Amino acid sequence: MVWGHLAVRDPDGRGVWMKASGWGFEEITRDQIVLVSWDGDVLAGNGKRHLEYPIHTEIMRARPEVTASLHTHPDTVNAFSALDIPLRPISHDATAFAEHGVPRYRATANLVRTAELGRALADDLGPAHACLMPQHGLVAAGVDVAHAVMYAVLLQRACATQLAAGDVKVLTSDEEALEKAALVWADAQIEAGWQYWVRRLSD
Amino acid sequence: MVWGHLAVRDPDGRGVWMKASGWGFEEITRDQIVLVSWDGDVLAGNGKRHLEYPIHTEIMRARPEVTASLHTHPDTVNAFSALDIPLRPISHDATAFAEHGVPRYRATANLVRTAELGRALADDLGPAHACLMPQHGLVAAGVDVAHAVMYAVLLQRACATQLAAGDVKVLTSDEEALEKAALVWADAQIEAGWQYWVRRLSD
Amino acid sequence: MVWGHLAVRDPDGRGVWMKASGWGFEEITRDQIVLVSWDGDVLAGNGKRHLEYPIHTEIMRARPEVTASLHTHPDTVNAFSALDIPLRPISHDATAFAEHGVPRYRATANLVRTAELGRALADDLGPAHACLMPQHGLVAAGVDVAHAVMYAVLLQRACATQLAAGDVKVLTSDEEALEKAALVWADAQIEAGWQYWVRRLSD
Amino acid sequence: MVWGHLAVRDPDGRGVWMKASGWGFEEITRDQIVLVSWDGDVLAGNGKRHLEYPIHTEIMRARPEVTASLHTHPDTVNAFSALDIPLRPISHDATAFAEHGVPRYRATANLVRTAELGRALADDLGPAHACLMPQHGLVAAGVDVAHAVMYAVLLQRACATQLAAGDVKVLTSDEEALEKAALVWADAQIEAGWQYWVRRLSD
Repeated sequence: MVWGHLAVRDPDGRGVWMKASGWGFEEITRDQIVLVSWDGDVLAGNGKRHLEYPIHTEIMRARPEVTASLHTHPDTVNAFSALDIPLRPISHDATAFAEHGVPRYRATANLVRTAELGRALADDLGPAHACLMPQHGLVAAGVDVAHAVMYAVLLQRACATQLAAGDVKVLTSDEEALEKAALVWADAQIEAGWQYWVRRLSD
Repeated sequence: MVWGHLAVRDPDGRGVWMKASGWGFEEITRDQIVLVSWDGDVLAGNGKRHLEYPIHTEIMRARPEVTASLHTHPDTVNAFSALDIPLRPISHDATAFAEHGVPRYRATANLVRTAELGRALADDLGPAHACLMPQHGLVAAGVDVAHAVMYAVLLQRACATQLAAGDVKVLTSDEEALEKAALVWADAQIEAGWQYWVRRLSD
Repeated sequence: MVWGHLAVRDPDGRGVWMKASGWGFEEITRDQIVLVSWDGDVLAGNGKRHLEYPIHTEIMRARPEVTASLHTHPDTVNAFSALDIPLRPISHDATAFAEHGVPRYRATANLVRTAELGRALADDLGPAHACLMPQHGLVAAGVDVAHAVMYAVLLQRACATQLAAGDVKVLTSDEEALEKAALVWADAQIEAGWQYWVRRLSD
Repeated sequence: MVWGHLAVRDPDGRGVWMKASGWGFEEITRDQIVLVSWDGDVLAGNGKRHLEYPIHTEIMRARPEVTASLHTHPDTVNAFSALDIPLRPISHDATAFAEHGVPRYRATANLVRTAELGRALADDLGPAHACLMPQHGLVAAGVDVAHAVMYAVLLQRACATQLAAGDVKVLTSDEEALEKAALVWADAQIEAGWQYWVRRLSD
């Protein structure tokens, strides 16, 4: 559907380039992207600004290394968040979050419609790759679009797998999970996964 | 399949325009629509009248602001209805029903084949956006087709999400759910979701 | 995949016309159908006979009104059968089995590879529309192909819905279920559902 | 995605021919296959070697009759492995593993990146058709590609079916499961299933 949005840091430091509101992700071309300033003004591009632009501006303000962030509302993530249990490393997917965990956003289940709510989200996210937003969805952040998108997909898949399992009995030790994350989700692996999707979309 | 139907209020007050029976939703063109009078007579159009026309005539009789109503039988809605638990606001989808709740139709699990059964359904629905029909399906109603269809989709998704979660531990407060509903499901948002689907079907 | 088969009674009483083995259902044309005698001899047609022909010959021998029978192995049916609980009328789909219930085949979980095993299956099926074959699949039977296929689909959907619900709390009374079955699954409704699929396949 | 790999024993005994890394299974042609020696050297072909080549070299070293092995990461297999319960023969699919069971790999949940870890996997696999790799995925092995691929698919389906059932009450006796396996998964049946997929891919 038309909710959910991706933002990329403006290389000239003016703010973030975001998907315009009212469009599905798969409809986006260069004509449905807007440059939103750090204060929420539309500086360039066509289309309407999403109400929740502070998700992206505040995460990028707080995390200088982040250049891409993504907000979506997967059913399985909302089902998982409603259980208030930790994400367990029962798959490679879940292991991507071994180092920083998957924090939960506490300030609101409503839209992140003010800079203050965006700062609270950036605070809860901290150094993590992604954050659960209970009753709402998720946000993921990365050093580039490949990382942000992969983290969002991996979190969605990890939540679905743990929901399917139910009461988990067997899992990797914390130490092994950290070792796995470094190997399985090295930058080259993230890039390989991303390039595969880019190729499939080009078909 | 061929069960389930959508109706739209006749602008001249003669009754409702309904999908004809025997066709799947995706097969419907202007040639498979019939005008059904308030008493169930076919006044215009081609095709057979669904037995359950009183669902639509009685809801529109009871709710002057409603101009579209939709009846379907999603598996996940029937599974959810069998549990006799309230729908919880664990996603944006479920929040759409925060103000009026999702009432349950009690008169029958059989087809709504008389005006009396239709009136009982309209009574149980009351001012709500949608009503569970246990062992049968759902009905949704709105000020236009966009609202009726969106409410049906949101209810189906909300039931699926809560079934996936199981025993819900974390949810939005009633107060926040109401605030969310006003913002997330404002008319412009319903319209944006609907227009997206219309575009996708045109592709 | 290539397992599962449909049979139709030979109008001249020589046996049953069956899908040949080694092909998927969607690959079948007039060239992959064989006439199998009541004793298992291939009398006409091209292709190999399925080992389990006695499913069809023995059901049709025991039920003179049956002219079509179908055997498949849906995952959800096998999951449901493993629970040893009755099918509950929590949807229109499940209500199709209100009159005769859904019996269970007890003689074997292995292939129905002899006339004796086929007779035991026909005995367990009795007058019902379909029979669970635990650890194996299902068989459905009807007065024509439309009925046999619809009963198989309805049973698969009913099992999936009840699995999704889990511990069912609310259901139709036995009396209402019988009334519903007569109305919802009248011959004209079965035919309407079947004709819809035939149209979709022709697209 | 691009993880998971299939290997085939080199007919001249030099090692295994493997899918190259960085590609999805459906992208593979003769140009994305590499010959990996028993010590991990790339002897022929284009593309990068997967880190986990010891899965294949060590299984084929330990099992002279195996000529094909497959490693994938299905969600349902990871969910099932996290429960630490045995696979039950509640479907034909699960029965394929009746004779040897489905052992679990214990040495690591991390990548199988050394010959020693590969030998430990071959030890845990023993004579079985497939092995669960908890928090990671599965490996399957067979006398040809048809068997290896079918065993991987059957294990994935069997895990999904048992997850859907939950607490299994009814199942085949061990004796019957063995009889079923011999009949249902005879070589000719494996080949028939495989040839069906080959035909579908050619369409």
